[in-house]
Amino acid sequence: MSDSREQILEQIKEQGDLVRQLKGAKESKEKLAAPGGVRSRSTIEKAQQQQQEQQNQHEPQQQQQIQEQQQQQAQINKIDEEVARLLALKAQLGGDAAPASQKFTLKTPKGTRDYAPQQMTLRQGVLDKIVQVFKRHGGEAIDTPVFELKEVLTGKYGEDSKLIYDLKDQGGEILSMRYDLTVPLARYLAMNKISSIKRYHIAKVYRRDNPAMTRGRYREFYQCDFDIAGTYDPMLADAECVKIVAEILDTLEIGDYVIKLNHRQLLDGMFEACGVPAESFRAICSAVDKLDKSPWADVRKEMVTEKGLDEATAEMIGEYVRLSGGTELVEQLLADPKLKAVPNAVKGLEGMQLLLKYCSIFGLDKRVSFDLSLARGLDYYTGVIYEGVLKAEPSSRSPAKSPQQNGETAEQATVGSVAGGGRYDNLVGMFDTRGKAVPCVGVSIGVERIFAVLEARFAASKVKLRTNDVEAYVASAHKGLHEQRLRVLNQLWDAGIKAEHSYKLNPKLLVQLQHCEEHQIPLVVVLGDAELAQGLVKLREVTTRQETSVKLEDLPGEIRRRQQA
Amino acid sequence: MSDSREQILEQIKEQGDLVRQLKGAKESKEKLAAPGGVRSRSTIEKAQQQQQEQQNQHEPQQQQQIQEQQQQQAQINKIDEEVARLLALKAQLGGDAAPASQKFTLKTPKGTRDYAPQQMTLRQGVLDKIVQVFKRHGGEAIDTPVFELKEVLTGKYGEDSKLIYDLKDQGGEILSMRYDLTVPLARYLAMNKISSIKRYHIAKVYRRDNPAMTRGRYREFYQCDFDIAGTYDPMLADAECVKIVAEILDTLEIGDYVIKLNHRQLLDGMFEACGVPAESFRAICSAVDKLDKSPWADVRKEMVTEKGLDEATAEMIGEYVRLSGGTELVEQLLADPKLKAVPNAVKGLEGMQLLLKYCSIFGLDKRVSFDLSLARGLDYYTGVIYEGVLKAEPSSRSPAKSPQQNGETAEQATVGSVAGGGRYDNLVGMFDTRGKAVPCVGVSIGVERIFAVLEARFAASKVKLRTNDVEAYVASAHKGLHEQRLRVLNQLWDAGIKAEHSYKLNPKLLVQLQHCEEHQIPLVVVLGDAELAQGLVKLREVTTRQETSVKLEDLPGEIRRRQQA
Repeated sequence: MSDSREQILEQIKEQGDLVRQLKGAKESKEKLAAPGGVRSRSTIEKAQQQQQEQQNQHEPQQQQQIQEQQQQQAQINKIDEEVARLLALKAQLGGDAAPASQKFTLKTPKGTRDYAPQQMTLRQGVLDKIVQVFKRHGGEAIDTPVFELKEVLTGKYGEDSKLIYDLKDQGGEILSMRYDLTVPLARYLAMNKISSIKRYHIAKVYRRDNPAMTRGRYREFYQCDFDIAGTYDPMLADAECVKIVAEILDTLEIGDYVIKLNHRQLLDGMFEACGVPAESFRAICSAVDKLDKSPWADVRKEMVTEKGLDEATAEMIGEYVRLSGGTELVEQLLADPKLKAVPNAVKGLEGMQLLLKYCSIFGLDKRVSFDLSLARGLDYYTGVIYEGVLKAEPSSRSPAKSPQQNGETAEQATVGSVAGGGRYDNLVGMFDTRGKAVPCVGVSIGVERIFAVLEARFAASKVKLRTNDVEAYVASAHKGLHEQRLRVLNQLWDAGIKAEHSYKLNPKLLVQLQHCEEHQIPLVVVLGDAELAQGLVKLREVTTRQETSVKLEDLPGEIRRRQQA
Repeated sequence: MSDSREQILEQIKEQGDLVRQLKGAKESKEKLAAPGGVRSRSTIEKAQQQQQEQQNQHEPQQQQQIQEQQQQQAQINKIDEEVARLLALKAQLGGDAAPASQKFTLKTPKGTRDYAPQQMTLRQGVLDKIVQVFKRHGGEAIDTPVFELKEVLTGKYGEDSKLIYDLKDQGGEILSMRYDLTVPLARYLAMNKISSIKRYHIAKVYRRDNPAMTRGRYREFYQCDFDIAGTYDPMLADAECVKIVAEILDTLEIGDYVIKLNHRQLLDGMFEACGVPAESFRAICSAVDKLDKSPWADVRKEMVTEKGLDEATAEMIGEYVRLSGGTELVEQLLADPKLKAVPNAVKGLEGMQLLLKYCSIFGLDKRVSFDLSLARGLDYYTGVIYEGVLKAEPSSRSPAKSPQQNGETAEQATVGSVAGGGRYDNLVGMFDTRGKAVPCVGVSIGVERIFAVLEARFAASKVKLRTNDVEAYVASAHKGLHEQRLRVLNQLWDAGIKAEHSYKLNPKLLVQLQHCEEHQIPLVVVLGDAELAQGLVKLREVTTRQETSVKLEDLPGEIRRRQQA
């Protein structure tokens, strides 16, 4: 526990340094730019200033000013964003960075977090949009328990199995927390003898991974899965899953993205062509999977030193996994003498050809990229695999994988995977008593990363999201009216109107009005003895402060009318 | 694991017996009733028949027939309901009751279940209605992790702590699954120094309890909580929580109910008045809590034998906990010489008086009942406590607590608690470094029990819920049209229309139309070469089988128009 606390303190220190550095950079630039302001103190800064002034002579004065203003604004946004990250880290420690007398640190478990109302509003908005896309493609919802019999998960995740959370043996069954939603789906299909379904499932999964929370990597995180199970013709369901990823990333407007495509059969065929022994396919595949985080040199080393591949074979793999493109690449590889000789490789390439054709009909030519470095870590994939990745925004912090590390072009630099999936035709059969297979293909949306991007953007924008839906607040103009308030509230609630009041007997009117402004409640019903004696109340619009007298019995109708206006 | 399997097999046996018994009863009655049919075989049945025929003479013939028909229908419904329960139990074993070659039984963990699309549709409907009520009262949503540091949960649940699920120590923090949503809320408030909030939280909680799944008691189950935190005037927030319970149970239409009210301070005062030592208050309270499941004799025995109370004290408590009523009971108890002398009792009673007054303003006179046997098991309550219970429907199976066991009137017989909550003013303070208290009151809706009632009702009604939202199915009239289908689908999806197709290259038209009928999809777009050559498609209404030709470019607009019609 104290370990994890220290880790957060360490992260806070790093993030604090970053914020100070950014603020410092902004300050020194302002000093340079301010006309007639304080000038630079050091000779280095003076030199920088002269250089800048010289550059300025080459540009029209006005354009330069606009550019400077834009840069400043981008810099301010960037600082706000990083400050928000810093505050989020501090919140992990419980608001107060050093609780002295507490017996234990008040925190959520390592790698997890609470969602405050603002975050919930944002999250619900994202999930609603995703569900809309799932339903547009005919998805039905299912749900499964958060834990499974440990045996259900055993042997499904390869090297990642060590990240599974186990429950304590308290007598009875031995249980583990679900690691994804795919294996529970396969168990569900086999258990209920279901041979075709198109289902979505939105729920939390659990991985004892190294968290990187400011970038949206948690130990408890949401997955939004859509899967198509059933015996169908090649690539029709697979292409629809790719379309779904594109629709979701489009509707969420989180920036430019690419959907990388590859095929497990092609990977296996390529390994075979390069001379990898069949029993090492999965291990080498898992090494290739690390290419999105590590440079080729590291992956190559893992293949040779840890996984016993000879150097020539590794080099040959290295040549292939550098390739990415479209239909023309498929054709090039179909003509490759080494691959042509391996049936698996040919089948994989023919599959890719069909998939790219269907993707083209779906208008996805500019969104997809056939990428031989895409491997996906999990053991259960058997066919197409894909991954949706956000491209790095120019203003963003440098991603974990920096372009030069891979020797690839800058446009391929990505800030992270936000969706992934593929075909897994044998997983359901592993659970069936007679081994009956149900072919499946599916996609999982990594919404935490999406939340993180949207949260940072929101924090920087300083817009306050409304977290309640209250239509009318019932206020007392003077003392002794609490029972009248309850009567009016009851009338509104029974009419289906969202309404609330102060839970104090005699709240000050100003305090009540302030509450409405803070919580963005549009209408206030103000009660006073004089009006009530005539069966009237005042209805006040919070933004305009306009007040109208309304008959008590007309109140619900009048509020409805105002809301619709 | 085999234990749990045996328990289910046991339950299946019991449920099977019940179904056979009900079917047998129906059969023998039909034999009695059928004019000219087979008559009763035993002399007992003959006697019953004669008795019935004698009774019949006192009633007009027609009315009697209607009554008999109604009874028969009720009986058939009852049988269907119990058969549904039986099938649900069998499903727990994985559809197939005896999978022979499977290495382990394919099942969900004990006390948990999957939700199929039909159940999800029902569940989502219930949760949506509950959220609507929460929002009507100004609730904001929050979420917390599914597990907490074990220390957070320690010492919060009294005797029930033994039911907490612990996670295995895999290095790092020691974690437990949340037992409710109240303690995580308190941790959240203290950690973030929040002194007022009105929040709702809908999430699963975990208890290693004895499951009774056909009655909606699970080890993994949803709670829907609404809580009001803040320092306010007495009973205003408390009464609103009672109102929320009533609104939810009204909107869900699950049958007649009563909301029992009591006050922890009154219970403590009553224990004091009866001579219970202060250190035994919580233990005696927990014994009283069992009155809804066990007869007084058992509770009395627990108090005397296990908890060391003398018999006279137990008897005195027995007198009080038999009482229930309204304002008149509060006045009667305020005049009670023993209670009058105990400040805690007087304060509790005055609180009840105010609560009943506010409940009356909220129109709840007929819904609430002040009930001194209500205790609530959890340790953390400090003020008002309440519980919403469904009254037994005359046709329902006898509840765990049968009326005669308590010596109460039949109208008080209940089929189970579906909502509960109360005031807990000290829980947040337990987490605060300086012990700063944040008074809270809240309510938790027990939706699993509600799902169980609605599921059984639904299974009996034989109505098939629609589990997808597809507006149009795109079909091929003949072979070779799959790419055309993809083009039309893409057009519809891009226009935001929910559409799907067969994932086969050349599906039969009849099979495609049957799919639409089975899945209640209203419209089919039928593609054929002849029409496509003219830029046309056929739009077919599934129920009427009417077909119209529509221009391809008008298709999305035409589907929209049909949907709105």
